[in-house]
Amino acid sequence: MTSIPFSDRFALYDLVVAYGALIDAGEFDSWLGLFAERCTYHILPRENYELGLPAGLVFCDSRAVLEDRIGALREANKYNIHTDRHLIGLPRLIGEEGGEALVEAPFAVFQTDQEGETRLFATGLYRDRIVGEGDTLKFRDKLVLLDTFAVPSLLATPL
Amino acid sequence: MTSIPFSDRFALYDLVVAYGALIDAGEFDSWLGLFAERCTYHILPRENYELGLPAGLVFCDSRAVLEDRIGALREANKYNIHTDRHLIGLPRLIGEEGGEALVEAPFAVFQTDQEGETRLFATGLYRDRIVGEGDTLKFRDKLVLLDTFAVPSLLATPL
Amino acid sequence: MTSIPFSDRFALYDLVVAYGALIDAGEFDSWLGLFAERCTYHILPRENYELGLPAGLVFCDSRAVLEDRIGALREANKYNIHTDRHLIGLPRLIGEEGGEALVEAPFAVFQTDQEGETRLFATGLYRDRIVGEGDTLKFRDKLVLLDTFAVPSLLATPL
Repeated sequence: MTSIPFSDRFALYDLVVAYGALIDAGEFDSWLGLFAERCTYHILPRENYELGLPAGLVFCDSRAVLEDRIGALREANKYNIHTDRHLIGLPRLIGEEGGEALVEAPFAVFQTDQEGETRLFATGLYRDRIVGEGDTLKFRDKLVLLDTFAVPSLLATPL
Repeated sequence: MTSIPFSDRFALYDLVVAYGALIDAGEFDSWLGLFAERCTYHILPRENYELGLPAGLVFCDSRAVLEDRIGALREANKYNIHTDRHLIGLPRLIGEEGGEALVEAPFAVFQTDQEGETRLFATGLYRDRIVGEGDTLKFRDKLVLLDTFAVPSLLATPL
Repeated sequence: MTSIPFSDRFALYDLVVAYGALIDAGEFDSWLGLFAERCTYHILPRENYELGLPAGLVFCDSRAVLEDRIGALREANKYNIHTDRHLIGLPRLIGEEGGEALVEAPFAVFQTDQEGETRLFATGLYRDRIVGEGDTLKFRDKLVLLDTFAVPSLLATPL
């Protein structure tokens, strides 16, 4: 296994856990701040990914598109009011090349609706390319691989 | 992001994970030992917390009250026999002041009943004030913010 | 609490997280590589374990038996097609003796079937004896303690 060339492994852990925490807190501007200036963000079923099919639920190939998308999700969220709770497993360092680290982490997202019912919403795997920008780590490419092709309701917040 | 002034970050991780593990193992005396001499323990819906409403499910503003409460929960548990399983995400260091650290961690609790059925019981966020006492870290204030206002059954063990 | 005599705590974290990740990715040969040459692998309900009853769902008392078992599970998986997702909590170092570390970690396994439905499959506790072999950590004894005695469907992959 390789070792990350950044300040320390905890910085990596902090980035991954902040990702989920900021969605759950509804702090989307801070959440956008976790991404590098040049970044991508994709959500797709793992099956499509493994078959090499690019079709996904969310496809943002630039920061501008990601910012637009977040604005749209916020609007949609007015009609699907809920809160999220991310549980993210320990990140696993898959490899490094050219100053980038490839990191995977499993996740489960639970949603609570206005009636107070909490349900499992989705499980999957984050597969992230992480870079150093200044003295902090940022997501360069975030790939959200869903375990199911059938997300059970409107995708009103990022995963 | 700030850095904790205590021996190491792993001590923080160990405290947070022991919290869940000792509930799941039913070792409530050891669990009480994770709290500082002066401590508080609150369980309330996140909605109430965000609105500044103090009303909660459990409100212990001293160690004596917490010890009493644990005794009562143990009694209640005789009538709601189940086992718990906590999954707690990586703790996130929010800040420090005056020798205290403010730490958040998401959690999910699963319960298994006597018929052997395992269900999601609750999700939420721990928001803890942690202090050093001697050479170990302890909970000074433990805030359990539930994602739902509607806990689906008798609260027979701490969350 | 004791401190692990191995290179670092992250190596321990990496071992535990790789365990779940390799099952979820279906990489069973790499998964077998996480076990020491002499190893055991048991799955049993926590109730049986606490009562000292050895009866379990899976009982492998050598590496050869474990390898056989994995082959059989792969075969069974053809008739129970699903994907797994493990969420494993932070490992907790319980103790050390004779160059071995005793480590516990809570887990939840979610399964997604061919219709795309994701369900909670099982929760429980890993209770592992971990040893150094060469310069890497390996599982010497893996005990999967299930919270339920009633696993809801065919056990087609390891837990």
